[in-house]
Order: sequence, then C-alpha cells, then structure tokens
Amino acid sequence: MKNPRVVILGGGFAGIECAKAFKNKAVDVLLIDRQNHHLFQPLLYQVASAGLAAPEIAHPIRSIFFNQENVEVLMDEVTAIDLTGKKVIAREREEPYDYLVIAMGVKTGYFGKNEWEKFARGLKTLDDATAIRRDILYAFEKAEACDNPAEREKLMTIAVIGGGPTGVELAGAFAELARHVLRRDFKNINTNEAKIFLIEAQDRLLTMYDPALSDYTRKTLEGMGVTVRLGSPVAELKEGEVVLGNETIRAENIVWAAGIEASPLTRQLGVETDRGGRIVVDTDLSIPGHPEVFVAGDLARCLDQAGKLVPALCPAAMQMGKHAAKVILEEIEGRGGKNYDVRPQFRYFDKGSMATIGRSHAVAESMGMKFDGFIAWLMWLFIHLLFLVGFRNRIAVLMQWFYAYVRYRRGARIITGLSGRLK
Amino acid sequence: MKNPRVVILGGGFAGIECAKAFKNKAVDVLLIDRQNHHLFQPLLYQVASAGLAAPEIAHPIRSIFFNQENVEVLMDEVTAIDLTGKKVIAREREEPYDYLVIAMGVKTGYFGKNEWEKFARGLKTLDDATAIRRDILYAFEKAEACDNPAEREKLMTIAVIGGGPTGVELAGAFAELARHVLRRDFKNINTNEAKIFLIEAQDRLLTMYDPALSDYTRKTLEGMGVTVRLGSPVAELKEGEVVLGNETIRAENIVWAAGIEASPLTRQLGVETDRGGRIVVDTDLSIPGHPEVFVAGDLARCLDQAGKLVPALCPAAMQMGKHAAKVILEEIEGRGGKNYDVRPQFRYFDKGSMATIGRSHAVAESMGMKFDGFIAWLMWLFIHLLFLVGFRNRIAVLMQWFYAYVRYRRGARIITGLSGRLK
Repeated sequence: MKNPRVVILGGGFAGIECAKAFKNKAVDVLLIDRQNHHLFQPLLYQVASAGLAAPEIAHPIRSIFFNQENVEVLMDEVTAIDLTGKKVIAREREEPYDYLVIAMGVKTGYFGKNEWEKFARGLKTLDDATAIRRDILYAFEKAEACDNPAEREKLMTIAVIGGGPTGVELAGAFAELARHVLRRDFKNINTNEAKIFLIEAQDRLLTMYDPALSDYTRKTLEGMGVTVRLGSPVAELKEGEVVLGNETIRAENIVWAAGIEASPLTRQLGVETDRGGRIVVDTDLSIPGHPEVFVAGDLARCLDQAGKLVPALCPAAMQMGKHAAKVILEEIEGRGGKNYDVRPQFRYFDKGSMATIGRSHAVAESMGMKFDGFIAWLMWLFIHLLFLVGFRNRIAVLMQWFYAYVRYRRGARIITGLSGRLK
Repeated sequence: MKNPRVVILGGGFAGIECAKAFKNKAVDVLLIDRQNHHLFQPLLYQVASAGLAAPEIAHPIRSIFFNQENVEVLMDEVTAIDLTGKKVIAREREEPYDYLVIAMGVKTGYFGKNEWEKFARGLKTLDDATAIRRDILYAFEKAEACDNPAEREKLMTIAVIGGGPTGVELAGAFAELARHVLRRDFKNINTNEAKIFLIEAQDRLLTMYDPALSDYTRKTLEGMGVTVRLGSPVAELKEGEVVLGNETIRAENIVWAAGIEASPLTRQLGVETDRGGRIVVDTDLSIPGHPEVFVAGDLARCLDQAGKLVPALCPAAMQMGKHAAKVILEEIEGRGGKNYDVRPQFRYFDKGSMATIGRSHAVAESMGMKFDGFIAWLMWLFIHLLFLVGFRNRIAVLMQWFYAYVRYRRGARIITGLSGRLK
C-alpha cells in the first residue's frame, strides 16, 4: 500500500515543525518552499542593521531533513492550489496530495497602497535585510562626502514605520549602529547626529504588551536617541519623504514594519479569509469543508481555546505545525477515523512574547509576568540562542554578540550588490 | 603650511598598506575605493563555494583607519585621472593631489572576448562570489526536481576555466561541496555524480610552480573527482557550453578564472602599459615622466631587483604599497630631495606562494623549498588566518573551518538574490 502523501507549503517554523513530526511515520512528505533556507526571522533585523551576516540566521531546509528519509524538499514557487483536484501547482510541476498543510507565512503589506513599496522596503527575507543594510551603510558613505547640510541631514535620517516588535528592534539597532558602531569610522560627519524616527499610528508602541512596557520601550528608545512619533499614521509616502499629519520627515532610508498581508494565492482558494487575506480555520486548523487541508503559522486566522486570536509568533507557528501533523497522523493511524467531530482541537500554549530594544534592554511578558531591562534582555538572548537552528549558527552568533557587546563593533557592515548602481 | 596631499586609489592590499605607512606623518591621505570594504581576496573562493559568509572575509575600510587621523576614506568610483592637472575625477567630485598612488587592482579579463562574460562569471568581488554560490546551489536544487537525465547531468556540471591558483582552489572546493557537503541533503540526485571540470590551456596546472607540484595538484584533484583537461584552450563559450578542441562540455555553471585585465582607465592615461593594460613603472614604482604618480599592486608592471616580473600576489602588493609610501615620505621629509635618481628602488622580497587544493591538501613554494600535502595545507591555514584583517574575522573563520573540517558541513549554503528570478 502506498503511504499517504502530505504536501507542506513553506519551510518556516510551522512547516518545519510539521514535517519533523512525521519522522519514522508511514507518510511521504513533500515540503515546498521558494527559498532553499529556513530563516530565523526573529533575528532578521540584526542582518538589516549589520550585526549578523545573512547565512548566520539561515539554514538550508534540506539539511534539516537529511536524516529523515520520508521528507523530500523541493525549491519551487507555488502558483496555485487546486482544492478540488487535490493538487498543488508549482512553476513547472503539479504535486498531488492526500493532505495539504499551507504554511507559507505572510509578506509585507501596505494596506492596499502598493505604490508605497518602492519608497519603503519591508523586512521579510534575507534579500530585504541585506538591501536595507546596503542602503543604510551607503547613505552614511554619501553623507560623508556631501557638502550640503540639508542633503547630509536627509542622508543621515532613517524612518522606521510601525511601532510593533520589528519596528522597535530595528529603530534600536539603527540607533546603536549610528551612535556606537559607525561613530569612529567617519571623520567628516558626526554619526551621533543621525536621526532615527520610529513612527506609530496608535498612541503607544508594542500595543500587544502591557502599557507599562510600552512606556518603558518608548523611554528607552528615546534615551538611545530615537525620535518616537505616536498617534502618527502615515498620510503619504514619497521618494525619501514620510508625510504625517502636520510633519514631513525627509529620510534617505524608510523601512516599513507596519503591516503584513497574505499571498494573493489565498484569495484564489475560494475559502473564507479575513481582511488581511489570512485563511479562517476550524478549531483543528483545517479549512472548513476541506478536512484534508490545514493552515498553520501566520497565514492561519485561528482562535485559541479562550476564543482569542492566536498571535503571529514563532511559538504559535511551531505549535500549529505540530498540531496539523498530529491530526493527520491520528487519522492515518485510524485513531480518529474519519470522524471529524472528534479531531483534537488546537490549544495554544502562550509562552509569552518579547522584544529587544537594543544592547541590554528588552521587554517580555510571560505567564502573566512582565519583565524589562537587562533581565528581559538576558531572557531574550538565552531563548533566541536556544532556538537558533543548528550548532554552528548558535556558536557563531553567540560569539559575535559577545564580541559586539564588549567592543561595540559590528562585523557585517559590508555593502554588497551595488554593481553599477553607484551614484 | 599645508600638508602634502596623497591620494590613494583602491583599498586592496597595496592601498591599505600604503595608507597605513603614513601614520603619524605630516601628510593628508585620501583613500578612494568603489567598495566600502577591504576584501581578503585569497579566501573569496570560499564564499563562492559556500564555505564562508561574505562579511567574514571583508572589513570596512573606514574601520581600518578609525584611529589614523590623517586618512580620509571616500567611497566613490574614479572615472578619470588628470596627470597634467594633478587631480582625480570621481563621479561627483574632483580631488587634487600632490602624490598619487594608483592601486586599483585588476578585473576579470576575457582576452578581448568580452561577450564571454555573460556565459562565465569571473571571481573578483563579493557580489561575484555570492552570485556563483547562488547559481551553483540553485542548479543542484533544479537537478533534484529534474526528470530528464541529460538535463540533470548538465545541471550537475560545473566547468572552471583556468588552472591557476584560483581555478585549482575553486575546482577543489566545488568537488568537496558536491561530494561531501551536499551529499546528504539531496534524495533524488546523487551529488557524487556531479561533474567538476578544470580546464587549462597549457600542459600543466599552476604553471608558476615547480612541475612536481603541478603534478601533485592534478593527481590530488583527480582523486577528489575533478576532471582535469590540460592543453585545452577554450575555443568557444556559449550559454551552458564550453567548446574545447574536440570536446564540448555542457555545464550549467561556468566559472572563469583564466584571465585578468586592467581597468580601461589605465589606457586613457597616455602612459606605457603592457598587453593586459598594466602600467609600466620605474624601479621606484613611479610612472616614467611622472615622479609624483606611483602604481602599486596587481596594476603595476614592475621588475624586481633580479629583472623578474613581480607576481600579482598579496605580499607583493603590500610591499609595493609600503614602498610607494616610503619614497613619498623620504621626499617630503627632504631626505631624497627632488633628486629622483637617488630614490630607493623597490626590492621584492619573495616569501613564496601557495595554493590550497581542498580539505588538507595544498602546495607551497618558499625560499627555494617545495611543500605539498597536509603540511602545506597547515602552512596555508596558518598564514591565511594570520593575515585576515580584524580579530573577529580571524576567530569566526577559524571556528567555521574547524567545524567544517570535523563535520564536513558548510554553513553558508544559502541562496539569496533570486527575487523574481526563480525559473
């Protein structure tokens, strides 16, 4: 008898955990991703701010499964899903499935203003991160050679839009980059004069956290030299300009950390999605009416046991990936039978969440407790090191952080990919 | 009195050593490079073969001089040199000089067949290296998904053109990548079947070395699974095809390590150049008729004290850079006066040369002695670690090598920069 075939779309945290859960089971797994690597997304901001090299936070998906015989990995882009014919259509092939796990994650979203994309880069991929790093470092190079004070000020201004964890982490890291790391390198400009704006539409940063932590975050960032603009929705974006209600910020570099959206693929499925394109799933993570199709990770609009929306965080994605595998395995192994009513429900175990603000500052919430300052930063450091995939990455990253911490240096401040673009 | 102004073009080994030699001297130095980083070129092949991450072999030029007050660094591209007006013209500015040191190095050259560039990438910059890495890793991904045996064979074939040190190092590293590092990752293809060709027009590899070492190199490479073609000048290059005399090799990836040439800038100077565009210099490294202009590094066509051509090697470049600074300083400090006849001559101290063939194999020649095998590899390792600029790089590189050596893994096998190019 042929093994049931599970196709997993996406090699992020949900997809990887899902595939791992089939180890030593009578299931054939095909994992498809358009990248060849699993990305440790929580540290992507460190690549964008020249703290880490791109390969240090990524791991080839294949090598994660090199000793799991029943997982095949395919690097390809999925262009459509045929729910009726039970197959996935990629660029050059069709792959039939018995079970499908959609775990493709989300991409940067501009609230429908797609024309803003060319003025403000999002941060979702390694290419995004190295492009942000290149553009910011290059702006300082141009400032060093610039005689016009207004132009120099613009070159030395970075605007980060969105006061969630990514925006906070980026703004903090950029401030440290300018004020500590680059300070000694430049002789004409004073990098302490670099302006970092963090722009948030709502009236506080990190709105998912306790207001006291939002306040701590704002004060810490301001202490680091970041200008925080709250209650300031972006009215207009132009080349090098962010227009707020009554203020226009001229910034050579604008980074967008304000929104995400699902791939257009989800809207073509003909199933219920929310405003952001996330797929509404049942309590077992399957799509209503399609018990053989599951959604896991950021792409799933899913309520937890308390009726609260499950957040778009790594632990949630991992738990969802594992859960989808569990439901599939129970069914295959005949425990749940085809009785969908008795399928196990997804229960979200909320380990809490954390955001780092800079060198030795962070905020964290876990199990009803709040942490800030150095202790939160140590927690953050410890947890992120534990999570990093692969021995080599863990040690190399620890070493670099340690060195950067002691010496205030960053090793990865290299401008690449400029060929023919020097201007 | 204003300090004399020395403009140095190029932040390679020659330019950096030259600028360093002016430390604490009454000279204003301006160093111009189109990149923001100094590149440890001898290890570039390791980035191309996924052994190291790009930032690990590069160092921001600025940070090398952060504590040398009299050095200014400008990231810009030089478009012309006005020898009569004594100024350098960059994209947006002109920089006058009292002394000029041209140390821009060379680029990949195709013996006048510039149309070959699009079929066979050279290896001179970090962008070259990451592009080669991407294309080779991606070819294996495509092979894994390919059902056509002939097509699969082509996807798994890499042709390296040029049997000098770069070609030898690349071929060895690609063989190890396919046969050891990637072997466990792929399930449909057997990466042991990957074909690596090393193509050399002359009748032996590493022609600058003793024939016994050339022979050892060929045998070692063949033992690693590299197919070596000697006496095989390339007749024609096409998309995915290398045509030799009586053989056509179909290879998805073709890397060009066969030639270098000077930037067209040198031909516009109106001074004597050799066939490759290298500038013919006097025994003091100045350009005949222009005692205030020096050439250092690969761009200089220079004879040593014995009348032998100084080779294009790092130690030679560093010695030349230092020498140019010495001549300038003697003149400024009044020792040599304006009497060009008494300028110190450049004396090349030949420390020898070495090339690594792969994991624990290398060849070296020094002071009339020849080395091969593991001992040569240890020498190579030791010398390259010593040379690497910057503490952080040294430790990180050592650690990764150690890990790669023990576990046969490579940390940097990440495909980036493919956006919208998946096909």
